[in-house]
Amino acid sequence: MELRQDADYIINAALQAALPDTAVRRALDGQAFDSGRLILVALGKAAWQMAKTACGILGEQISDGIVITKYGHSKGPLPHVVIREAGHPVPDANSFSATAEAIGKVSGLTAADTVILLISGGGSALFEKPLIPGDELASITKQLLASGADIVEMNTVRKRLSAVKGGKFAQLCAPAKVFSIVLSDIIGDPLDMIASGPAYPDASTCAQAREIAARYQLSLSDEARACLDIETPKALENVETRITGSVRQLCAAAEKACSALGYTPIVLTASLCCQAREAGSFLASIARDHAEAKESLAYIAGGETVVRLTGTGLGGRNQELALSAAAGIAGLENTAVFSVGSDGTDGPTDAAGGYCDGQTAAVLGEKGLDIQAVLDNNDAYHALQACGGLIMTGPTGTNVNDLSVLLIRR
Amino acid sequence: MELRQDADYIINAALQAALPDTAVRRALDGQAFDSGRLILVALGKAAWQMAKTACGILGEQISDGIVITKYGHSKGPLPHVVIREAGHPVPDANSFSATAEAIGKVSGLTAADTVILLISGGGSALFEKPLIPGDELASITKQLLASGADIVEMNTVRKRLSAVKGGKFAQLCAPAKVFSIVLSDIIGDPLDMIASGPAYPDASTCAQAREIAARYQLSLSDEARACLDIETPKALENVETRITGSVRQLCAAAEKACSALGYTPIVLTASLCCQAREAGSFLASIARDHAEAKESLAYIAGGETVVRLTGTGLGGRNQELALSAAAGIAGLENTAVFSVGSDGTDGPTDAAGGYCDGQTAAVLGEKGLDIQAVLDNNDAYHALQACGGLIMTGPTGTNVNDLSVLLIRR
Repeated sequence: MELRQDADYIINAALQAALPDTAVRRALDGQAFDSGRLILVALGKAAWQMAKTACGILGEQISDGIVITKYGHSKGPLPHVVIREAGHPVPDANSFSATAEAIGKVSGLTAADTVILLISGGGSALFEKPLIPGDELASITKQLLASGADIVEMNTVRKRLSAVKGGKFAQLCAPAKVFSIVLSDIIGDPLDMIASGPAYPDASTCAQAREIAARYQLSLSDEARACLDIETPKALENVETRITGSVRQLCAAAEKACSALGYTPIVLTASLCCQAREAGSFLASIARDHAEAKESLAYIAGGETVVRLTGTGLGGRNQELALSAAAGIAGLENTAVFSVGSDGTDGPTDAAGGYCDGQTAAVLGEKGLDIQAVLDNNDAYHALQACGGLIMTGPTGTNVNDLSVLLIRR
Repeated sequence: MELRQDADYIINAALQAALPDTAVRRALDGQAFDSGRLILVALGKAAWQMAKTACGILGEQISDGIVITKYGHSKGPLPHVVIREAGHPVPDANSFSATAEAIGKVSGLTAADTVILLISGGGSALFEKPLIPGDELASITKQLLASGADIVEMNTVRKRLSAVKGGKFAQLCAPAKVFSIVLSDIIGDPLDMIASGPAYPDASTCAQAREIAARYQLSLSDEARACLDIETPKALENVETRITGSVRQLCAAAEKACSALGYTPIVLTASLCCQAREAGSFLASIARDHAEAKESLAYIAGGETVVRLTGTGLGGRNQELALSAAAGIAGLENTAVFSVGSDGTDGPTDAAGGYCDGQTAAVLGEKGLDIQAVLDNNDAYHALQACGGLIMTGPTGTNVNDLSVLLIRR
């Protein structure tokens, strides 16, 4: 049970560090702004939580502001700031009207003024002023979602159809400065991609946008096609950016927590992206070759693995990773592997992830459960439920990918 | 090119350390034997090479001996020792007659005598005295191979149908001592499994053997069925064992070579067993998060990955691993991933493995080759050939699994 307690301590510490509150506090800590007006603009699924913390810190300094978040994601009024809810993942009329309102608030500012821009995942749909009719933008977004285009490809196209994405919102704020705080939910923190980079120079090109439109055979009006040919800003003088609460900080917090428990922590990566069960196998391989280690070790991997569906069971990538590792660490003393989604929701389940140790395989065996068969049926949830291996956190209020840890206790 | 030179140096050093010659030399170094007779018995695909080295070291001390290897694997006569070639992977009449000859040579020894037993992969088929008619043993072996049974399951059954496997040969040598040198080709060095453990206590049970027979619906005579019920020895007082030339030594030698080149080596595991392309992705994830490392790093993983065939191309697990990593390290400076099979033959190709660096993806892109499409077609060989990424060693004369390394040069 000691290992499970260690795991719960590490998970809790890592999640705390990745909460929007902690993340915004860290970014604003000791930060001073010019004597002009301070305008707060918060975008994305975590916008309300981020804005609440910023309002708490900046207080009366804020002269005006707006929160644009997903339906149901506001938790009440905030001082000096209006709250708008809008459509996600497909932008709707409320996305457009709220965005127009935000543009209004940053218009006519001077060089002494500052826009505090709080960005989180989901901002691409929520924050939008289309350069084409809203209906056509909705149609193109749906086409992209249906085509299997990845988020990079979607944003490359959408930036060019928008008056605010791809750095264009920062241009609208000028000559005011923009202090941008980004809660990263994309591995590697690609700032031009998160919320489609409203205040970040855009690395994508018109040629790429045209190539994507051709590859997925997008149905586009002449107007939309013309937009793909207008280049996005490649430099923004008025913007300062802080990345916070990303998977790197999730890993760094886990590293610190492991140290506090007496483990020597080794952060392998914050950009894990392979198949969940193979990552579990890899971590188990590491465990087997350090079974005779003299010191306590914690191998940490952040990122977002993928699951190949081959069955009809219930589970999620973190649960699969942990259960897969259980087979590889079977019989090892004082060895555990756990994996948890920072949003508290792993796949379509009420669990955040899974925990397995050297005894798990035997416990499951006694219950007649074969790990390989469970994995083949993508049914990790029920197997972990049967052996007390589910990690339940409830919704955490953040979303900065996953944390996977191998613990070897001495 | 510097990184490729480093890779070639590391590969060469690791392979040298895993050669049967080096491995046997290491095990016999400084070893003294009792004044009685010294009988050499060498089994497996590397038997001739191991015996040659032992003969060179022990010289006239050897009074008698036998080498039992696969057809075509003998390279000529050795002093004091007869050479026999036999069937693999299905034992044949020559396996049985050579084994009977070996039993004759170790019969009637005294407690002052020593049997030097050199064991390498392939010994399970080559060294056999069946307790049932040879034809039936061949049929059961074929049934097991066709059923998809793994090597552990195959050996659990075959040990009970044999007079020499599962520690029984060491019993036949008693009261003489047995000095057993094992060139391990199974990950984790399970001594009761390599060549079916002729001189190692057997951990498998009659119950397991019966379960395997039932699961794969083996067709068995009453005589064979009765053999499954006879338990194997669980302790052997007269045996001393040295494991040598295993994948651990391959990794240890790579570690030493990396240090010599100025890298800080980190041995992650010597028991990697996940999918080749996912292992490549995992190593690339590590690379991305250490791109800003201040010191040169070398992450080392030994083991044996697997490939899921989805296409009709040409390749092997080491080539797939390296090529998969190429996608993940694309654009990274001074970063390379290579993977090599210690036998010099990766899959059905003439290459030992593959080498990729941060430029590989761009080079392949210029040639119109998409890494994901190549992997989907299992055609890593031709892609690596196109970018100079094949590692060619020729047959090495050893077989101790694979070595995969991530290099980050500063």
